[in-house]
Amino acid sequence: MNIGIIGAGNMGSGLGKIWAQNGHKLMFSYSRDFSKLEKIAQAIGSNASVGTPAEAVQFADVVVLSVPYGAVEDALKAAGSLDGKILFSIVNALLPDMSGMAVGTMTSAAEEIAKLATNARVVEALPVFAEVLNSESRRFGDQQATVFYTGDDEQAKQVVADLLREIDVESIDAGSLKNSRYVEPAMMLLIQLAYTQQLGQVGFKLLRR
Amino acid sequence: MNIGIIGAGNMGSGLGKIWAQNGHKLMFSYSRDFSKLEKIAQAIGSNASVGTPAEAVQFADVVVLSVPYGAVEDALKAAGSLDGKILFSIVNALLPDMSGMAVGTMTSAAEEIAKLATNARVVEALPVFAEVLNSESRRFGDQQATVFYTGDDEQAKQVVADLLREIDVESIDAGSLKNSRYVEPAMMLLIQLAYTQQLGQVGFKLLRR
Repeated sequence: MNIGIIGAGNMGSGLGKIWAQNGHKLMFSYSRDFSKLEKIAQAIGSNASVGTPAEAVQFADVVVLSVPYGAVEDALKAAGSLDGKILFSIVNALLPDMSGMAVGTMTSAAEEIAKLATNARVVEALPVFAEVLNSESRRFGDQQATVFYTGDDEQAKQVVADLLREIDVESIDAGSLKNSRYVEPAMMLLIQLAYTQQLGQVGFKLLRR
Repeated sequence: MNIGIIGAGNMGSGLGKIWAQNGHKLMFSYSRDFSKLEKIAQAIGSNASVGTPAEAVQFADVVVLSVPYGAVEDALKAAGSLDGKILFSIVNALLPDMSGMAVGTMTSAAEEIAKLATNARVVEALPVFAEVLNSESRRFGDQQATVFYTGDDEQAKQVVADLLREIDVESIDAGSLKNSRYVEPAMMLLIQLAYTQQLGQVGFKLLRR
């Protein structure tokens, strides 16, 4: 397959390297420093070339968009027509300092509840599905599901973490209550997988290494 | 510990049942049908009682808020002062028909990109961290990380799913491009865990049963 990559960061180059090893043809494009593209392509070898974003689109069966969110509009302008092309976007809407998201989630149920529950020490955790909770075991095979808790009061968080452990899940401190704006959609993703995608009882396990 | 539960759904009752078995004292409150609360408490036994939301708050070391998002304001009004109390919220901001979220995420990078990339067949997937991607192996021990892909063109999604499998991850169809509004914050959660919570290289594994 011919794969055009727009964006020369370590995600695009890392993906391209693996795909090139598998025999796909890669064209790298879109860097302020063209020699960076050439270095990436040289390191990969004969399956990799460089070009402009428009050339990468022309070349490609699949165009990978791998730029910071703030650069999307400029990159797509440089790419030209994508009519009928598969555009594989790996762009997340992170702010450059990773302090939040540029589009999407700006608040959460937890933050709204904290506004209403004056002076309460609010901790949020969204446990496993009710079907899992109310069954013989909360485990998935031998694995505990991970439940994330958020809050701004460390002592209150410890109490909730202990209560979560009692239901036989792994409880992970996900930071301040503001981070509920990421935890809540993550749980909504599970609901979509369970019901719309019909995967049944699902949960997350946090992998670490 | 004395635990007051506001909301008589199968999450609150399921949690309460487990905690009561572990020796905690539970008080259930807030149902349109008071006899439903009594049935839950009777099924649990001597560690469970029923009361009004205000009584549950008075009684409790930890107050569990377990109501639909639309009932939050009414439930907190009925609860009265929560001054200094630990409020353990398990409320997600789901719309009643689960078609979306009542607060928080209303769009995504993927949806914005699809608006800009006219006629492109946009598929989004946010692969593992660059540090993981560019290392010897993408596995966490012997486990593959799960990468979710979204899009509205089935054939384009299959192409992306195959490319993801080549990087040695489990690729899971997370539905329409609109669901990127849940996938993107979920990945932001991983970033928060990695950097703010300093957990290092992390990933999700989708558990199923």
